[in-house]
Amino acid sequence: MTEAFAATWQPLPPEAVRILPLGGLGEIGLNMMVVEYRDELLIIDCGLMFPEPHMPGIDLVIPDISCLEDHTHRIRGLVLTHGHEDHIGAVPFLLRKLGFPTVYGSPLTLGLLRHRLAEHDLLGLAELVEVAPRQALELGAFHVELFRVTHSIVDGLGLAIRTHMGWIVHTGDFKLDQTPVDNQPTDLVRLAAYGEEGVLLLLSDSTNVEKKGFTLSEREVATAFGEIMPQARGLVVVATFSSNIHRIQQVVQAAVACGRKVVITGRSMEANTRIARELGYLKIPDDVLIDVRQARDLPRHRVAMLTTGSQGEPQSCLVRMSRDEFKQLPLEKGDTVILSSKFIPGNEKAINRLINHLYRRGSEVFYETTSEVHVSGHASQGELKMVLSLVRPDYFVPIHGEYRHLVKHAELARGMGVAGECIEVLEDGYPLCVSADGLVREPRLETGRVLVDGRGVGDVGHMELRDRRHVANHGLVVVMLTVSTSDGSILYGPELLTRGFVAEEETDLLEAARSQLWETLEEIAPETSGERETLEVEVRKCLRRFFNRSVERRPLILPIILEQ
Amino acid sequence: MTEAFAATWQPLPPEAVRILPLGGLGEIGLNMMVVEYRDELLIIDCGLMFPEPHMPGIDLVIPDISCLEDHTHRIRGLVLTHGHEDHIGAVPFLLRKLGFPTVYGSPLTLGLLRHRLAEHDLLGLAELVEVAPRQALELGAFHVELFRVTHSIVDGLGLAIRTHMGWIVHTGDFKLDQTPVDNQPTDLVRLAAYGEEGVLLLLSDSTNVEKKGFTLSEREVATAFGEIMPQARGLVVVATFSSNIHRIQQVVQAAVACGRKVVITGRSMEANTRIARELGYLKIPDDVLIDVRQARDLPRHRVAMLTTGSQGEPQSCLVRMSRDEFKQLPLEKGDTVILSSKFIPGNEKAINRLINHLYRRGSEVFYETTSEVHVSGHASQGELKMVLSLVRPDYFVPIHGEYRHLVKHAELARGMGVAGECIEVLEDGYPLCVSADGLVREPRLETGRVLVDGRGVGDVGHMELRDRRHVANHGLVVVMLTVSTSDGSILYGPELLTRGFVAEEETDLLEAARSQLWETLEEIAPETSGERETLEVEVRKCLRRFFNRSVERRPLILPIILEQ
Repeated sequence: MTEAFAATWQPLPPEAVRILPLGGLGEIGLNMMVVEYRDELLIIDCGLMFPEPHMPGIDLVIPDISCLEDHTHRIRGLVLTHGHEDHIGAVPFLLRKLGFPTVYGSPLTLGLLRHRLAEHDLLGLAELVEVAPRQALELGAFHVELFRVTHSIVDGLGLAIRTHMGWIVHTGDFKLDQTPVDNQPTDLVRLAAYGEEGVLLLLSDSTNVEKKGFTLSEREVATAFGEIMPQARGLVVVATFSSNIHRIQQVVQAAVACGRKVVITGRSMEANTRIARELGYLKIPDDVLIDVRQARDLPRHRVAMLTTGSQGEPQSCLVRMSRDEFKQLPLEKGDTVILSSKFIPGNEKAINRLINHLYRRGSEVFYETTSEVHVSGHASQGELKMVLSLVRPDYFVPIHGEYRHLVKHAELARGMGVAGECIEVLEDGYPLCVSADGLVREPRLETGRVLVDGRGVGDVGHMELRDRRHVANHGLVVVMLTVSTSDGSILYGPELLTRGFVAEEETDLLEAARSQLWETLEEIAPETSGERETLEVEVRKCLRRFFNRSVERRPLILPIILEQ
Repeated sequence: MTEAFAATWQPLPPEAVRILPLGGLGEIGLNMMVVEYRDELLIIDCGLMFPEPHMPGIDLVIPDISCLEDHTHRIRGLVLTHGHEDHIGAVPFLLRKLGFPTVYGSPLTLGLLRHRLAEHDLLGLAELVEVAPRQALELGAFHVELFRVTHSIVDGLGLAIRTHMGWIVHTGDFKLDQTPVDNQPTDLVRLAAYGEEGVLLLLSDSTNVEKKGFTLSEREVATAFGEIMPQARGLVVVATFSSNIHRIQQVVQAAVACGRKVVITGRSMEANTRIARELGYLKIPDDVLIDVRQARDLPRHRVAMLTTGSQGEPQSCLVRMSRDEFKQLPLEKGDTVILSSKFIPGNEKAINRLINHLYRRGSEVFYETTSEVHVSGHASQGELKMVLSLVRPDYFVPIHGEYRHLVKHAELARGMGVAGECIEVLEDGYPLCVSADGLVREPRLETGRVLVDGRGVGDVGHMELRDRRHVANHGLVVVMLTVSTSDGSILYGPELLTRGFVAEEETDLLEAARSQLWETLEEIAPETSGERETLEVEVRKCLRRFFNRSVERRPLILPIILEQ
């Protein structure tokens, strides 16, 4: 399945432009793209993704940017489309490696980024420049214009980059919300204008390409809140993504409308609402906000809580409430909980467990699959088609999606009249040259994913993950043995120590394994003459066979052999 | 969260009946229920469930039946409602412990069970008795009548048990399919008759209680197959659950209708189709079936493959095809793959990966979220209401569902006019007494879940799972040390060996840890005088602190200290 990487970055053919996705084309998240023009580089987004099930213990995944190492002097800037973690989350880890390019983004995007950079003690080192919709940036060879897009976070931007062959339009993550909460819809006027002037290449968000029609407006959620909240007899808890400022605004409005004060809990919810209020994106009168202690003193039907934990995160306030472990403000029978969020694939089991526990507390629970308490932030087929018909690009590359989303977005574009040879289903690591001659996909560069575990970046690799999975699935048997260097005889052991393999009471099994191993070692002692490596191989072989036969398990066997 | 268990099984009050769920009330799967009447016991179903994400390496989960241990002489029979694993899968593990009660089931149910029992060398020991719909069984004090129900497996049954207070009706898993493929609908006539005679207690399937309206008929899937298959230019692969005989029948009919031969792959698909054909439930003319070699020799548009792997199971034929590792009949560009199955919660990531790989092979893929290629086997709200209005029970206990499903089914019954005090949201392990005085929930008995790993049943417990998860999340550090028994001085080591912790190249980190540990041990040597347990504690404490500070990780630390 794997493929050799091309050696190096090729010189850009004259009069061409190149794009190189480092993440986000083949997965949801990890978004990062390099644009090369006239020997200069521009980077769009620098996001992370959350680990997959086969990466136990990993906290985050960030793009591998080693192919940029010798090219940082050519980077003219890093433009962030919006403030979601999968677009800005890798900045603190990669800014130094990128040579501290100037970072451009809207005020909220940079506000959220500043918070992250401060956590990494990088605030003083980063140069951040605020940009606004319809603003133009001259970054070396790049003339970049920014345009407003609506998304599940406010202050989202798309990019238009001027080349001598026409515009490159990058949508960022978007939907065409005609009635956004802040009345700032996606700038269809600019998109139409680029289309008229001539668009060389469209890069468009593929996340929701499997959804027919049009994504509902963010404002629709208010209807559901407006029905649920006034009828609720007890406390109302709303869990949502802490970056969804408009959602938060709507929760607050619904709460105020039925005479409830609002208490905010959860680290990221507290941080993001603070940032958004300071920057003027979120309007909450001071007298509406209360703390948990004040909430406890009010009648329950006078309080709404805003919090995180909608994905069933074990440490979150909501999960602790569901397990009756949040003593500051415990749930009571008759309370209402709204999960105003998507069930992110991979989290369903944890979310289900959360919901069941909430029902055990006697709460009424509203969630995506049973109520209209969430809308997506990504464009459905109707919106994707509208962007294609406004922009009418010469070439089209679907971005931001798993492989099947990219394929389906390509099919959708073909259905809109874009010729097959003008569409490329591109994946991470493949540079694509765009010139008057058409699209040329170049050999793959060395890119991939870097794992972050605690403070370590990249020090846990595939070998370590393999061992982790091995022990997770089969447990571990450590074998201790001291042998004589003179004649290979066993001076101590073999002693067996297990973890995660069988319960301690299973002494018979381990005793049988020990005897079997002893016999084997005695038998082969003359041949091995106590040679450590040979002995290790034999210990592994013997126990592997024994445990496979006796219990059909394959624990990780770790022989520790001392010589004396 | 945990609760003390009641000591023992209480004597049954006179003129009462008791039910005791051992599984399935609080989870999807693991279905097993005991009914006690006039000092005798009847068991309904004996199913397994598949492990949850926090149970790495576990193959299966079965009910804990230790509370039945002293009561096996009172068991008058085990009645199986249908042949799904979550209703029959624990029989091979528990039949002996239950004292080999006679097992009753429909021909297909017993056919599938026989296959499982044979794998466990239990076929000769089990007494299996075939039963038919509308048949009555006299099992000690129990007069049991069986009635036909439709479900995603053929030959499903519900039970009616006669008591002096009225009937107990147990629906099994069901839907009200009005046009089932075998023209054998759920026996509403009998349900109505029981309702007329008087139903004491209804136990009804809650799995789909969150779905509005009526579940579509199994026959609807044929429409989708009939559209997709004739248009497919290449090979068509259909993956479905191997127990869904009607689905398989419809796939075969659609294939034959467009001139395709059928090749069956996958161990359980091969076994189940063989059993179902032998028993007459599945009709496939011999000349339709071909093997893989013959399939390779035919034009691709003349072949349909039936297989498993719709949940993204790594060893399945379909997943190997998607990774281009199934050399017998590789997928080619333009082939069609239909996942005719539900995305079971917890499997989404694996299924997504499968679908993406299939697109990489150039296949067109149809699946539940984008096409009408699957219908559920469980009753939606409309059907649940219909059963409630036919049966009009005195008391109602929702069964087969997670906690929230049970609560919602209870609410639905209340909405149908069943009084609140006549409904009990019961969970596994709680006995419920039903008598003229009403419902009495009794203290919890010792029940739970037993983990099966390889050939071991119950020898991996919570401690072992905790260790597995610990190593999976943080890796492992083994510390070797030889100390002198005379003065506690270090004779050898400390040496550090890691697995799944950091890459081997990270020698600096491990060297720093080693020095830190050496210093600590030297310092405390006089106090510990080489005492093994004290040293172990100190090694753990020192390294835990060191790694937490340096890389913010908490590996499992395993000190191995030899004394000399």
